[in-house]
Amino acid sequence: MAGDGSEQRALQYEQTLMYGRYTQELGVYAKEEAARLRESGQRRSVSERSRALDLLEYDKGRCAKCRIYTARCQKFLISRVGEDWIFLILLGLVMALVSWVVDFCIAICLQAQKWMYGGLDSNVLLQYLAWVTYPVVLITFSAGFTQILAPQAVGSGIPEMKTILRGVVLKEYLTFKTFVAKVIGLTCALGSGMPLGKEGPFVHIASLCAALLSKFMSLFGGIYENESRNIEMLAAACAVGVGCCFAAPIGGVLFSIEVTSTFFAVRNYWRGFFAATFSAFIFRVLAVWNRDEETITALFKTRFRLDFPFDLQELPAFAVIGIASGFGGALFVYLNRLIVQFIRKQKAINRFLMKKRLLYPALVTLLVSTLTFPPGFGQFMAGKLTQKESLVTLLDNRTWAKQGIAEEFDYIGHSDAWKHPQVNVFVTLVLFIVMKFWMSALATTIPVPCGAFMPVFVIGAAFGRLVGESMAAWFPDGINTDGTIYPIVPGGYAVVGAAALSGAVTHTVSTAVIVFELTGQISHILPVMIAVILANAVAQSLQPSLYDSIIRIKKLPYLPELGWGHHEKYNIRVEDIMVRDVRYITLNCCYRDLHNVLLTGHLKTLALVESAESMILLGSIERAQLQALLSLQLGRPRRLEYIRERALEEMKRLSVVSNVGSEDGSHQASQEVRFQISTEESSSSPARPVPQKPLKPALKRPSVVERPPEIPTSPQDNSGIGLKNLFCASPDTEGLEDDVDVEDDMTIREIAEWEEQQLDEQVNFSNCKIDPAPFQLVERTSLHKTHTIFSLLGLDHAYVTSIGRLIGVVSLKELRKAIEGSVMVKGVKVRPPLASFRDSGTSSSENEATELHKLWDRHKSLSLPRDHTPSESDEKSQ
Amino acid sequence: MAGDGSEQRALQYEQTLMYGRYTQELGVYAKEEAARLRESGQRRSVSERSRALDLLEYDKGRCAKCRIYTARCQKFLISRVGEDWIFLILLGLVMALVSWVVDFCIAICLQAQKWMYGGLDSNVLLQYLAWVTYPVVLITFSAGFTQILAPQAVGSGIPEMKTILRGVVLKEYLTFKTFVAKVIGLTCALGSGMPLGKEGPFVHIASLCAALLSKFMSLFGGIYENESRNIEMLAAACAVGVGCCFAAPIGGVLFSIEVTSTFFAVRNYWRGFFAATFSAFIFRVLAVWNRDEETITALFKTRFRLDFPFDLQELPAFAVIGIASGFGGALFVYLNRLIVQFIRKQKAINRFLMKKRLLYPALVTLLVSTLTFPPGFGQFMAGKLTQKESLVTLLDNRTWAKQGIAEEFDYIGHSDAWKHPQVNVFVTLVLFIVMKFWMSALATTIPVPCGAFMPVFVIGAAFGRLVGESMAAWFPDGINTDGTIYPIVPGGYAVVGAAALSGAVTHTVSTAVIVFELTGQISHILPVMIAVILANAVAQSLQPSLYDSIIRIKKLPYLPELGWGHHEKYNIRVEDIMVRDVRYITLNCCYRDLHNVLLTGHLKTLALVESAESMILLGSIERAQLQALLSLQLGRPRRLEYIRERALEEMKRLSVVSNVGSEDGSHQASQEVRFQISTEESSSSPARPVPQKPLKPALKRPSVVERPPEIPTSPQDNSGIGLKNLFCASPDTEGLEDDVDVEDDMTIREIAEWEEQQLDEQVNFSNCKIDPAPFQLVERTSLHKTHTIFSLLGLDHAYVTSIGRLIGVVSLKELRKAIEGSVMVKGVKVRPPLASFRDSGTSSSENEATELHKLWDRHKSLSLPRDHTPSESDEKSQ
Repeated sequence: MAGDGSEQRALQYEQTLMYGRYTQELGVYAKEEAARLRESGQRRSVSERSRALDLLEYDKGRCAKCRIYTARCQKFLISRVGEDWIFLILLGLVMALVSWVVDFCIAICLQAQKWMYGGLDSNVLLQYLAWVTYPVVLITFSAGFTQILAPQAVGSGIPEMKTILRGVVLKEYLTFKTFVAKVIGLTCALGSGMPLGKEGPFVHIASLCAALLSKFMSLFGGIYENESRNIEMLAAACAVGVGCCFAAPIGGVLFSIEVTSTFFAVRNYWRGFFAATFSAFIFRVLAVWNRDEETITALFKTRFRLDFPFDLQELPAFAVIGIASGFGGALFVYLNRLIVQFIRKQKAINRFLMKKRLLYPALVTLLVSTLTFPPGFGQFMAGKLTQKESLVTLLDNRTWAKQGIAEEFDYIGHSDAWKHPQVNVFVTLVLFIVMKFWMSALATTIPVPCGAFMPVFVIGAAFGRLVGESMAAWFPDGINTDGTIYPIVPGGYAVVGAAALSGAVTHTVSTAVIVFELTGQISHILPVMIAVILANAVAQSLQPSLYDSIIRIKKLPYLPELGWGHHEKYNIRVEDIMVRDVRYITLNCCYRDLHNVLLTGHLKTLALVESAESMILLGSIERAQLQALLSLQLGRPRRLEYIRERALEEMKRLSVVSNVGSEDGSHQASQEVRFQISTEESSSSPARPVPQKPLKPALKRPSVVERPPEIPTSPQDNSGIGLKNLFCASPDTEGLEDDVDVEDDMTIREIAEWEEQQLDEQVNFSNCKIDPAPFQLVERTSLHKTHTIFSLLGLDHAYVTSIGRLIGVVSLKELRKAIEGSVMVKGVKVRPPLASFRDSGTSSSENEATELHKLWDRHKSLSLPRDHTPSESDEKSQ
Repeated sequence: MAGDGSEQRALQYEQTLMYGRYTQELGVYAKEEAARLRESGQRRSVSERSRALDLLEYDKGRCAKCRIYTARCQKFLISRVGEDWIFLILLGLVMALVSWVVDFCIAICLQAQKWMYGGLDSNVLLQYLAWVTYPVVLITFSAGFTQILAPQAVGSGIPEMKTILRGVVLKEYLTFKTFVAKVIGLTCALGSGMPLGKEGPFVHIASLCAALLSKFMSLFGGIYENESRNIEMLAAACAVGVGCCFAAPIGGVLFSIEVTSTFFAVRNYWRGFFAATFSAFIFRVLAVWNRDEETITALFKTRFRLDFPFDLQELPAFAVIGIASGFGGALFVYLNRLIVQFIRKQKAINRFLMKKRLLYPALVTLLVSTLTFPPGFGQFMAGKLTQKESLVTLLDNRTWAKQGIAEEFDYIGHSDAWKHPQVNVFVTLVLFIVMKFWMSALATTIPVPCGAFMPVFVIGAAFGRLVGESMAAWFPDGINTDGTIYPIVPGGYAVVGAAALSGAVTHTVSTAVIVFELTGQISHILPVMIAVILANAVAQSLQPSLYDSIIRIKKLPYLPELGWGHHEKYNIRVEDIMVRDVRYITLNCCYRDLHNVLLTGHLKTLALVESAESMILLGSIERAQLQALLSLQLGRPRRLEYIRERALEEMKRLSVVSNVGSEDGSHQASQEVRFQISTEESSSSPARPVPQKPLKPALKRPSVVERPPEIPTSPQDNSGIGLKNLFCASPDTEGLEDDVDVEDDMTIREIAEWEEQQLDEQVNFSNCKIDPAPFQLVERTSLHKTHTIFSLLGLDHAYVTSIGRLIGVVSLKELRKAIEGSVMVKGVKVRPPLASFRDSGTSSSENEATELHKLWDRHKSLSLPRDHTPSESDEKSQ
């Protein structure tokens, strides 16, 4: 069961990624990588020490000392360079530059569109063509470029960062290619004027930047090889991403914590603050140097009244905004997922889109830009304003609907876009909200690098403005009854609405802080906080957050949160959810057991117990280690060794002229060989990762029959093997032909016999890397605690023991099932959107067949079964 | 070694608490409590189910169904009441009320002082007496009241909360008594006008409130028994404490996270925000209702320019403020510790203060209030202003030193306190900073409930103001060269200084957010962030935070943080710091081994290994469990049972008239008894916590001689035992006389022999609570990772294993030593201030002698050794 489940999971990952793909053996990769780094680190320190010693011995004079001092100085300088703060400053600087350049390019793109549109005002058709073609071209380019260079760059990137910070290595998400694809793709996508955001991608870009910088800095050696440090730096990078995107350092840190972490190390707090502050500072200083601003101020500065920001009696209106935003946010997440599901389910659409993979982005862009065409429908929804302009106008501190009549209002700047000669400003706002709502939900499904935060933020601001304008129309002289007239400030409502809706969609509270930093005013703190909390309460009880929704759609290996106070889950214990049928190996098992265990499951690690009777857990061994052990035992070098031994034996026998039967003799020889080899093994290093060269001849033997009695078998396992055999049948014969050997004079039959003998030998674990303390739980551990421990330590699986005895295993999958089973999330188990795009591409699933399968298939196709005649198999193979 | 270390640690806790005291066996208490709660929970659920069944069976009619529905409704309502948000709203409400009432009372107290001082303006001497007596009386009352009611209420409370949230139960810190003492003590202390703060105590009060509310709510049943939930609620309560103190919900949440947590569960984030927002809201609404404010605004509202808050070229000045504040903050922490150390070291002062424990607060208050006496020295340092008033004036948005001449400035409101006819405003500010600096450091050592945040905040604001006024004097027309004159705003510098200095003292970044929320303006975000980060960088490299300093002074069981990027510590491994000499028991050990192991160490848990040869770790057992096992084995019930058995045996022997020697017979009998008892044991529940009744007669046998060979012994252990024997000699004989029994006809010699036999029996662990999965580490685990795991999981100790074999143990102590050894913190290992006060009080250390010691001492004094004559011991005991 356990093996089968993990296999299924692996397949799921492979099939159901939304846009990108990544290799199956992430965990294995991570561990190997870690081991490699550790080894190289050890090697380096040893070599350094030996170098120093060499120097000392080589020349006892001053010269050697000088050299040593020079080396020390160098080392000191390098260690300085390796200090965290230098890394963080570099990261902040680079990200600020990237953010500023991206903004600059986006602004140029948008200006170019306006210029084209403005220049062609003689002909509406030409104007329309210019208005529509421009974004379609940009988006198509962005989608194509991203698809070709790095499909991982598609989307927001926050779900992936969340998964990576959870401890799962998504290797291809942090490469230079992805960085380039993301930056250029994002610039083009946002330059098109579509309702897309910059924030999510910037979190990803900052992480990419940190990863690349880390790689670059590790050229200078030092501490950049520490894995946990890299994770901490990635967490800081997420803060930088938000910080330099909005010039909001505090909000950035908090938002990144809320969005990416489950447990946050306060130790890491200053890193985020430091880097984000520096980044935001540089970002704003660049604007000052570019003469865009006179001094460092907020990005969307507001000028609300300070002395009486709002009346106590306005609070119910703010609360209403919060609750409505909560429903709106949940609806947005639902709508987004619905669109993805719809496109996937419609086979016809799917097939069509599969063929022309750039058609979908183009069609969506065409639709959206047609509807926003200013002389067309766009005039009723301020279509000619860019996202930034609309936000600036929405946060304006003047009232648009003064005393219920919108006529006498002097619209200056961009605000006149909201005024339509025939239509009330309320209608414009409502149309804006409704249209932008579905447009944003649709646009974020386009496979380009894009976020949803900013569009949602703008929609929230518009909704807040609507409520604010209504309040202003309702109470023209304000609510306060103490004599002084304090008119209502609709801009304040817009601030509240923006924070509430974006908080509801992302399930975060820190949007409140981002809003304060964006507007440069904190006077509305209490309304904003109340609205954000209410919006979160509503949205969290209805839908997962947008990022969690994408995580589920993409089926990323992430552990969901325990919901708000689901207390019944305190009663579920590990014994209720654990898999009792654990794959294990015993200390005294033979290679055949190893072989069978490896064949029947896909778990990345296997438990090592003392014996099948005592079941005392001694540790866990990685699959790759066992595969290496097995291939070493059955490998060619050993067989050649055996042949040499046999020849010696033969010679000896001839000289002694003993009359022992040949079969017995060979058996004896193999026994002798075994002991000899096992001592040799301990001197060499056999437990390296799986050798790439497949093993040649092996046993053809149905594994089901020979499985040792202590390993429980289930029917699924058998069918699984059958499928694998079918699957891996073709690459089998090819591999065989390469490996025909000249010296090897053994017949296939002899080889099969020899392998049979080899499999019966006891396994020598002495050179195998054993994890001596795999994580253990007790039967009575509560689900709550298990979840906490898994989240805290980023575990993949844990063994359940009872007084040292292994009784079960719990993996992330069981835990996820247990949590989701009780939380009851509906309708999120869907195929990824545009999965068809990927299906038509080059497949990578062939590579996942592990070395052992090839081995086994060769066994089946090559060697002889005991019941068959030898000639048959000989004919088959040669 | 391990046992000895833990013993020392226990003693340390007992001796070196600063003001309070708490029992030694906190961990044991916590676990017992948890077990009790779990049991009662199970019992309740069982009883509920059975009640429902009873009802069903009792009457099949409608009536029973009705009752069931009623019960269900009731349960539903109760579960609703148990929801987190209701708890949080209640907590927020209560705390807002408490905060408001405390503020109100403090304001009245301060007004009363002013009124007295103002009314007596005819006579300076009378005025002085009134000015001085009032705070002395209040502080003395506060100190006395707190001392009598709950000494735990003394001080800030944040260090204790930090320790509690780390997982250590400081039981007496969360009682109703402490709550009352803290609230009343704090009100009086702050009402005296001394430079003390409200913030730290409010964190403690909120936690107290949460703990009490939790206890109260658990009357309704439900989830209030969950321990991890209570910890989460305490974390939220800390946020409420800061939030309702400053009306700063966001800053409160962040500050409480930074100050109290090592790893923060993002899951818990919303709780803090929700409760703190609600609390801050109610706190400010109360002010509006009380007509203090027109609407909800910030506590110390500023009115700085919005359009051009500061020039880019002013940033170096802000950076200077940050760096200077960093040094200042470190100096404050150092000074505070120095004062504590000085008072402790001076034996004469110490002895004197010990006698009159209220003298120290009175003297300090007298000194401080004399120096601030307005007609005296106070006129040069704005002495007549309260803390709040000085802060308001310091954050004023007008410039005091216009164009270098302070004359023409129209001082309105309280600002005229800063103006002295003869003295420059700069001199006043410098004097204010210097005097308040040492006064605050001194005042916070007074044993009353008080914090240091607010005084430091005011000093920081004054320092910032000083820099700002200097800048304003230097650049009368501002720095900007673009034509428009933007004069420098010294109030902005005050804001920056306040955030920087308080950040440096507390080692937090979130003081920046608190400042924004306190002033209601966020326009200075970048200067504030830069200054706070620089201040933190400087202060953290010089001194621990104020709270960590107090933790070290009080020797609270808290794990220090790994410093900023101490990369050399990545090279330390667990094997370098672990204790190799582990106390363990084997599965097949006899009671004598158990006995010896229990005597030789003080560890709360003992490792259970398979055998001394294999050393395979099977689990760990609590000390109390083993003690219970041992006392059951040697207890009276079993002995009486044995007597009965012997009598039966005697009868049987008489009837069969067999001729076996009596000695052999008794041996056989005891063997039989053993098996019989062990089956009886499994039906009853023997493994309850240590029975209070001490066991009566026992063996007199030096443990050193009989220790089994597989347990390694160290000389310290022996001396430790000797000391314990000496220590526990007196209560021994008293206990004996109570237990003289009528039915018990065994002689002391017989009893001793019987006990000898009993001790040789094999231990039956079947009813013992074994923790089957104690936390395990590997030798190669790095210090960094170990620290992370200990902090994350709140561990007390972890076993080090190598492929299942126990090879060492690491406790918090070793880890702390390893970290501090490399961090090199100087001069913090001091006795607590005013420790003498506690020494003279009633001692509680006698109670700590565990049950087993009594048992063993009885063994020594009562029973016979093998070499001695029996008569001797008989005479002694009877």
